[in-house]
Amino acid sequence: MDAQTMAAMIDQTFLKPTEGDAAGRAWIAAQLDAGFATLCVMPSLVPIAAAMLEGTCTKVCTVVAFPLGYALTASKADEARRLVEVGAHEVDMVLNIGAVLQGDYDGVQEDVAAVAEAVADASDAALLKVILETGYLTPAQIEAASVAAVAGGAAFVKTSTGFGPRGASIDDVRLMRAAVGPGIGVKAAGGIRDLVTALAMIDAGATRIGTSAGREIMAALAAGA
Amino acid sequence: MDAQTMAAMIDQTFLKPTEGDAAGRAWIAAQLDAGFATLCVMPSLVPIAAAMLEGTCTKVCTVVAFPLGYALTASKADEARRLVEVGAHEVDMVLNIGAVLQGDYDGVQEDVAAVAEAVADASDAALLKVILETGYLTPAQIEAASVAAVAGGAAFVKTSTGFGPRGASIDDVRLMRAAVGPGIGVKAAGGIRDLVTALAMIDAGATRIGTSAGREIMAALAAGA
Repeated sequence: MDAQTMAAMIDQTFLKPTEGDAAGRAWIAAQLDAGFATLCVMPSLVPIAAAMLEGTCTKVCTVVAFPLGYALTASKADEARRLVEVGAHEVDMVLNIGAVLQGDYDGVQEDVAAVAEAVADASDAALLKVILETGYLTPAQIEAASVAAVAGGAAFVKTSTGFGPRGASIDDVRLMRAAVGPGIGVKAAGGIRDLVTALAMIDAGATRIGTSAGREIMAALAAGA
Repeated sequence: MDAQTMAAMIDQTFLKPTEGDAAGRAWIAAQLDAGFATLCVMPSLVPIAAAMLEGTCTKVCTVVAFPLGYALTASKADEARRLVEVGAHEVDMVLNIGAVLQGDYDGVQEDVAAVAEAVADASDAALLKVILETGYLTPAQIEAASVAAVAGGAAFVKTSTGFGPRGASIDDVRLMRAAVGPGIGVKAAGGIRDLVTALAMIDAGATRIGTSAGREIMAALAAGA
């Protein structure tokens, strides 16, 4: 895989509760030239990231109801709308994990649909990813939640928050790719720290990689590792 | 301490991302007669809790920007306002931890003030607690964050989310009580699972205990443990 293609599949990620705006600015400044698909930053950094990334090919990604997913549906929609209005191009929401675990897939779909509508209202060009937090789910729940997320309007399904019981697995990605078909994105995220793992996720069906190690992955690719 | 006084100091807590509405209803039903200060539930359960607790002396508490605290200030205010409108009497928000760690106490105060205003707008009777997540902070940061939270309009300062690096400590509570003075509440939360620990926190200056073991603590008190 060539470097440009690889970079354009990476959401380079910075979601640390202990980092303030000053550290955020420094981090963003160091990512500007890498050609990543997005910088995925905590909500408080979205206005800063939008200003700093203007004129580059890298978009602004952020998170909603993160990482537990149990905000009110209306609050999720409010938060997503506001984040798109202040500059986010991609929004990664956490679905209602409890609803999945009790088999309420209509509820899952409605929750996603309300956020998808808010995102679309705020910008025609913005898109929604739905985080399943697969570490809590069975294979059957991963499949059904993927289908419900797409029915609700997700452009991508995403494995994990990075704050849950585990990160992405190859099996998660295969299941999700099979469940959503070829027209929908699959984002593997959580614990992906090297090129070998990233390529394995892509081979399993991922079209986007969420990682805080994007620069290390690109360096390994450049070194032919 | 008599049982009624003890129960009235407890926020009996249910903040599990893996539990759905059905499990939430069952849990709330089992807490109705205990005389707890509040049931502290995830946002998705607030309308249900408000309906089920109507006519009891137990109020509804919930959480905002939980547990990472890095939502946009305006999103925190939106979320708090909406939660009070659908039945929350007490709102436990997470402050901007990154702002504390970079010494931006004006930013901390402004973030809290926006949420305090939203809560007050939605109900004269509602109150705001501010979670410091003390596990990330030095003693000096705990003191300064407590002062900033109170300046922003917090009715209580609270130690921890239960999802951070550690729970409440006696030293946290002592520091926070000394920082805020006698007129403000101090809530100890995170890892408090027995009567001895709860009483030690109260002795150190806590006026509210956040725990998922409220019934066990009350049983131990009744048994003279």
